[in-house]
Amino acid sequence: MTVPTPFDPAAWLTVAVDEARKGLAEGGIPIGGALIAADGTVLGRGHNRRVQNDDPSVHGETDAFRNAGRQRSYRGTTMVTTLSPCWYCSGLIRQFGIGRVVIGEARTFYGGHDWLAENGVEIVLVDDPTCVQLMTTFIADRPELWNEDIGVE
Amino acid sequence: MTVPTPFDPAAWLTVAVDEARKGLAEGGIPIGGALIAADGTVLGRGHNRRVQNDDPSVHGETDAFRNAGRQRSYRGTTMVTTLSPCWYCSGLIRQFGIGRVVIGEARTFYGGHDWLAENGVEIVLVDDPTCVQLMTTFIADRPELWNEDIGVE
Repeated sequence: MTVPTPFDPAAWLTVAVDEARKGLAEGGIPIGGALIAADGTVLGRGHNRRVQNDDPSVHGETDAFRNAGRQRSYRGTTMVTTLSPCWYCSGLIRQFGIGRVVIGEARTFYGGHDWLAENGVEIVLVDDPTCVQLMTTFIADRPELWNEDIGVE
Repeated sequence: MTVPTPFDPAAWLTVAVDEARKGLAEGGIPIGGALIAADGTVLGRGHNRRVQNDDPSVHGETDAFRNAGRQRSYRGTTMVTTLSPCWYCSGLIRQFGIGRVVIGEARTFYGGHDWLAENGVEIVLVDDPTCVQLMTTFIADRPELWNEDIGVE
């Protein structure tokens, strides 16, 4: 699939929001991501699968990255995520040279995106009410699961 | 399985080295890891699976983390890895509050372990000749695969 070009943060974000909703419908943590090429091709999309796969290593961003398969270069790609990327996902973005991150919201969780900006990654914070609502409701309903997902005791 | 206690970096490292050798025998990138509890229980062990699974998200450390399953706390755990952790794996360690990292070597690749130390993670660098030899030989044999694994064009 493709998203509209030129770059349109709100339009591109909808792919990640769809993924977050899929995750919620599966009983999981509602965070979604997508890795998108400069020409609008969605290379990979995915969502948090901690609950579904019993796998703590699958965050929205790492699932999108995995589903994009092996890429020889991440130059010009954009990682779209419904929520500010945690250190784990921020490290992924930095290591592989993903050039831009579109973030649905950073109100309910503030991860490593300032660090990414300091290291040359373009950060676009949409502050999308749907993303805020998804996480606010989820955190109120399942605080223990959310804390587990970000390593908070 | 368990490793000898009290903490013995060289002995604990052997679990990760065994994993790196398994990966090499499978035709993969020879980097291994293990997540070990304070009492010496090996919670999870694994190795890089980029080639074997065609999956760029599985580094030695993330495979060990995944194989440890869902943990409510990482307090007191040690991540053992044959090679200095890249930003992706360093971010994992920071996000989940893994307290200590044992590193086989940081000669062939220098990742994020200084950043981890600045953020309160105990770093033990073994500088193990076997780990150096594994990576030196591999990088000479398959430079394109190694560069792909760390996002270098």
